[in-house]
Amino acid sequence: MTEIGVGMLGYAFMGKAHSHALLSIGHMAWPPPLEPRLVSIAGRSEAAVSEAAERYGFESWTTDWHEVVADDRIGMFDNCGPNALHAEPTIAAAEAGKHVICEKPLGMNADESYEIWQRVAATGVRHACGFNYRFVPANRLAREILEAGELGEIRHFRGRYLQDWLSSPDAPKTWRLDSAEAGSGALGDLGTHVFDLARYLVGEIASISAVTRTFIDSRGGQRVDVDDAFEAVVEFADGPVGTIEATRFALGRKNALQWEINGSKGSLAFDIERLNELQLSRGGGGFERILVTEPTHPYLGFWWPPGHIVGWGDTFVHELHHFLAAIAGEDTVAPHGATLEDGYRASEVADAVLRSAASGRREAVSYR
Amino acid sequence: MTEIGVGMLGYAFMGKAHSHALLSIGHMAWPPPLEPRLVSIAGRSEAAVSEAAERYGFESWTTDWHEVVADDRIGMFDNCGPNALHAEPTIAAAEAGKHVICEKPLGMNADESYEIWQRVAATGVRHACGFNYRFVPANRLAREILEAGELGEIRHFRGRYLQDWLSSPDAPKTWRLDSAEAGSGALGDLGTHVFDLARYLVGEIASISAVTRTFIDSRGGQRVDVDDAFEAVVEFADGPVGTIEATRFALGRKNALQWEINGSKGSLAFDIERLNELQLSRGGGGFERILVTEPTHPYLGFWWPPGHIVGWGDTFVHELHHFLAAIAGEDTVAPHGATLEDGYRASEVADAVLRSAASGRREAVSYR
Amino acid sequence: MTEIGVGMLGYAFMGKAHSHALLSIGHMAWPPPLEPRLVSIAGRSEAAVSEAAERYGFESWTTDWHEVVADDRIGMFDNCGPNALHAEPTIAAAEAGKHVICEKPLGMNADESYEIWQRVAATGVRHACGFNYRFVPANRLAREILEAGELGEIRHFRGRYLQDWLSSPDAPKTWRLDSAEAGSGALGDLGTHVFDLARYLVGEIASISAVTRTFIDSRGGQRVDVDDAFEAVVEFADGPVGTIEATRFALGRKNALQWEINGSKGSLAFDIERLNELQLSRGGGGFERILVTEPTHPYLGFWWPPGHIVGWGDTFVHELHHFLAAIAGEDTVAPHGATLEDGYRASEVADAVLRSAASGRREAVSYR
Amino acid sequence: MTEIGVGMLGYAFMGKAHSHALLSIGHMAWPPPLEPRLVSIAGRSEAAVSEAAERYGFESWTTDWHEVVADDRIGMFDNCGPNALHAEPTIAAAEAGKHVICEKPLGMNADESYEIWQRVAATGVRHACGFNYRFVPANRLAREILEAGELGEIRHFRGRYLQDWLSSPDAPKTWRLDSAEAGSGALGDLGTHVFDLARYLVGEIASISAVTRTFIDSRGGQRVDVDDAFEAVVEFADGPVGTIEATRFALGRKNALQWEINGSKGSLAFDIERLNELQLSRGGGGFERILVTEPTHPYLGFWWPPGHIVGWGDTFVHELHHFLAAIAGEDTVAPHGATLEDGYRASEVADAVLRSAASGRREAVSYR
Repeated sequence: MTEIGVGMLGYAFMGKAHSHALLSIGHMAWPPPLEPRLVSIAGRSEAAVSEAAERYGFESWTTDWHEVVADDRIGMFDNCGPNALHAEPTIAAAEAGKHVICEKPLGMNADESYEIWQRVAATGVRHACGFNYRFVPANRLAREILEAGELGEIRHFRGRYLQDWLSSPDAPKTWRLDSAEAGSGALGDLGTHVFDLARYLVGEIASISAVTRTFIDSRGGQRVDVDDAFEAVVEFADGPVGTIEATRFALGRKNALQWEINGSKGSLAFDIERLNELQLSRGGGGFERILVTEPTHPYLGFWWPPGHIVGWGDTFVHELHHFLAAIAGEDTVAPHGATLEDGYRASEVADAVLRSAASGRREAVSYR
Repeated sequence: MTEIGVGMLGYAFMGKAHSHALLSIGHMAWPPPLEPRLVSIAGRSEAAVSEAAERYGFESWTTDWHEVVADDRIGMFDNCGPNALHAEPTIAAAEAGKHVICEKPLGMNADESYEIWQRVAATGVRHACGFNYRFVPANRLAREILEAGELGEIRHFRGRYLQDWLSSPDAPKTWRLDSAEAGSGALGDLGTHVFDLARYLVGEIASISAVTRTFIDSRGGQRVDVDDAFEAVVEFADGPVGTIEATRFALGRKNALQWEINGSKGSLAFDIERLNELQLSRGGGGFERILVTEPTHPYLGFWWPPGHIVGWGDTFVHELHHFLAAIAGEDTVAPHGATLEDGYRASEVADAVLRSAASGRREAVSYR
Repeated sequence: MTEIGVGMLGYAFMGKAHSHALLSIGHMAWPPPLEPRLVSIAGRSEAAVSEAAERYGFESWTTDWHEVVADDRIGMFDNCGPNALHAEPTIAAAEAGKHVICEKPLGMNADESYEIWQRVAATGVRHACGFNYRFVPANRLAREILEAGELGEIRHFRGRYLQDWLSSPDAPKTWRLDSAEAGSGALGDLGTHVFDLARYLVGEIASISAVTRTFIDSRGGQRVDVDDAFEAVVEFADGPVGTIEATRFALGRKNALQWEINGSKGSLAFDIERLNELQLSRGGGGFERILVTEPTHPYLGFWWPPGHIVGWGDTFVHELHHFLAAIAGEDTVAPHGATLEDGYRASEVADAVLRSAASGRREAVSYR
Repeated sequence: MTEIGVGMLGYAFMGKAHSHALLSIGHMAWPPPLEPRLVSIAGRSEAAVSEAAERYGFESWTTDWHEVVADDRIGMFDNCGPNALHAEPTIAAAEAGKHVICEKPLGMNADESYEIWQRVAATGVRHACGFNYRFVPANRLAREILEAGELGEIRHFRGRYLQDWLSSPDAPKTWRLDSAEAGSGALGDLGTHVFDLARYLVGEIASISAVTRTFIDSRGGQRVDVDDAFEAVVEFADGPVGTIEATRFALGRKNALQWEINGSKGSLAFDIERLNELQLSRGGGGFERILVTEPTHPYLGFWWPPGHIVGWGDTFVHELHHFLAAIAGEDTVAPHGATLEDGYRASEVADAVLRSAASGRREAVSYR
């Protein structure tokens, strides 16, 4: 079994999720394509990053990510940092010859995302963008059903990502509400997940008609300059039409990424709050609730017998296993994983939302 | 108990639903505000209308609706005819002094709807438009919850009306697919129901950004010239934003009028395929499924003990009971019933959908 | 079209439901097998029965049911009276040559039920017992699926009927809590519905092991001498095993008759709070939610297009239409309707519950 | 941070689940009460146990569990072996001074379970029985709601554990179908989970009336001598009554541990196929679906933000974290964890099921 050294940037929410997944891969899928060795982790706060290193099992830590990029023991760079720290370290790591996976949204906007993708692609390393919801077994199964043509010609996609944690005016202003740190609000954080799934499941988006809203534009005396929500009508290049929205103001919806697809032969529906379930209609009486926990379902052979559900965190095991297999040459990142090109394309759609909201016009989505 | 003579136009789907409701009102709510006496029914086919008269219990029938309008025994005219027969008979009946209820969509477009409303209103009779979904107990209860401010400031409305009966290219072309008969497709038939509920529950719609689609533009060799589906982003006058759509191409959704409203204190959600249930979140752990069958729920005192559900057809009992009470002077049509003004306003929204689909721009909805 | 005169005993809950159904049959299914003419209604209170006659459309009324039985205009006697008034009037009506339908539970116990059945059967009239849940379209569809062998060999039945209206000690004592009036409590009122469906769907019950409970044995200073709930293990004659229970103490369950059947090829599940839905598993990923509203579904051709749900009250339209067809000789009461023999058999099962609760033993169910 | 050496018996389903949980504890809950060090794993097959050691991260392995028991580096013995290997190694480990956790069902019957409990308890070590479903956050939350008296006086418990993997006669005979290896069938494997939750949530079970079934008594030419299913009526010592059942013949139910509790103030319901959801009724309109993923919910502070669900495997993280805390003296195993006494008590209930099935009588459950 060949080892690969992993360097990570960021120890918070995503850092915890990714490092636990790296720890679990060999446990769940034996033998793993490559055995990840947690070499080094970088973060701003010395106290926090040193504790993270001990807790997550990294051999060393640093407050300067350049050290990780320069570390010869490291073959794979996992960027779990905040959005404003995606571009420079990811490019530097790739240019230092490391395979790179970077969390979403890729860049602060389409321009930056394009540059990250282009400069990383030019180095020839393997690259991936952290759209982990492709690795929800139900979503991957949906893709297989769609690819097999079981739904016929697709007519509709309706996707929405609903959270509620900003409903109260008392919620504090964090980096996620600051455009300099986050780029955008619900649009980049939640909307890009829906754009990526829409592209993965249905195809390229051709046009956008949208509005955005900032319902509460000041928190704790500080200005909020990102969107709280957006609403969009979408036309797909191949004909389907639909709606996409994201908000952090939907009380009772904690983390509800929901989508439905209607085709000429059937329909599919999904809600990530019921992550292990896929609803399938073949057009007869209604929808069948498929409990996506059979060993034959994507990635489920890793886990437990049928009916024993997996959790949200487990999608990262699938994602990072897939990326290791791509590095090992056993698989390719695309089409089932998102590459940095996919990261860029989601950013183009997000930019079109902002353009349409500003212009009041239906805006074409075009890729460079 | 005072009697009121009823004249009806149309014996098909809506004629059956309305006449059965008229028969049931006294049975369910005793004493009724007025006792409906089924005097006369008009329809195109002599064979069909004479059978309908016998079956539904009308004293007489005619193939000429002018006779109904001229009938002195009749105090209330119930227009269940096809869309192209809404304007002239409704106006004529009102001008003959009959109270009028007319099925939706009111006119073939906003211009015609405006004329119907204005000319009927000028006569001073009571008037109503057949948006019977206001009379689903769960929708009326939702309105009461919203009016009491229990959801706080409203941020989002997402409504959709999904059917599947045109998914197959083999479905025949009927009058509903002919613009001369129906005015529009999913837009007028299904969309106006959603517009009306959006207005009833949230408030006036200020702008629309939309696309429309005719997925199958020829059936049985005949051209289909109405929309199969539309998708819209909406802005409400008071601030909320959302999406509205309707389609007849959503396999597995037989008659799914679904809506969700998110406010600063809670959320509500509804699906008419589960007509007796209202989902309510107060922002805590999730949604409560309220079985809307308590005697204290709107109109449920008419029916059975808690837990014994009512059906789709029963909404017409509530609607026509409400209209009789308005005629008797015990209540007013608005705000809980839709007047012809509400019928007109829904048509303005529908027209804005068509304008936006054509222009590619966000279109303002303005009322005359 | 041939008319049949109907005489009714009882104007309360069941009287309202049955008379509305009789009024609706011709409206919904045209032409009806026989046209019911509401001749006479009997009840204890002169004020109430005279109002009921006017409200429900009966030509005459009486406080003495013997007059109904003796009335020559009447061909069908519909017993909607309290349990203690089932035996004598039903037998008398049959012996006077009237076809009889009697509400459930048939008699106060198996002995009385047996006598009713035997004496009515001896007269040669058509007879039915009011197990209207056989006429829920989803239940009838389930029967067809089972008869076609689609579930293979049956292994399990679990049925329960859960209500909550006695949970509070403040609920008043009514006739339903008095053994002299009601015979038993949840057992006869709710349990017999489950026994009848178990027999209709799975087959004869061979043994019972049960306990009963009266949680609150005094209300308003009066003794409650019927069961509040029972719990039973059942063995069916053909091999399946399962559980059956009923209670009026399940808060949050308003009227939840729920059952599930597991066979060697698939499973079915139902909850009457979602009366229009049947859950079907063919053993693959899970359960399909069938919206039982297609015109091809049992009795749905009577009503509306697919997706437009029917209500609890509509089951009586199906039941009484079926009984009229049997009287007209177009159909037989059995197997889809319950005869008085079925009423008797449900009483035998109920008696076995009481015997087992008393003896602490598994008790055989045997039929005379 | 203090380390504790862990020795494990068994590398299959439970061995994988437990070892992954031990690996994850520090990652999720920092600092852990004790840091588990995976010292040694024992198993029958040399090839399999050596691979398991490498895969799961144990320092050494052996085919003789006595070596694990004798290993001085080991402070905690985790028995994940088959049922027939629960008694001797667990007792030996405890007598060697190791804290012990043993998978369920504890012994092959109540006698053996009693002996394990007594002999282990006599040593003074900490002990636990692997009823991991107590550590489903929704179940622990249910216990807190019940302890706070929010449901009032309890009237009903209905629990069932439904799986489908034996429905086909072609399913092979494994050790789970052999009484010498497994003790019993669905009863010990699934039923004891329900008995334990019933005791944890409602209280002691006082009597049992039951039947058992072996639907297919020969597989692959070999006799099956354990139960495929059982059905039971239960009386609790404090008054509630209910039903409990388990089966491996319920097609469409993959791993459905479902329970419902009705009290005088409200009800709770749960289905482990929707592990992150708890249904709560306070007696009003219906049930609220609580998404049990708030940081304030039991154990959820370990994981992700609200709405990000956990999986079945994560319950072992909670269970083993709890046991480590008990060993560290920060907590006690009871009442939230199951001790070996709880393991024994579940066995007494299981024995009463078998006695009642044989005798046809209601059997008292009595504890020694």
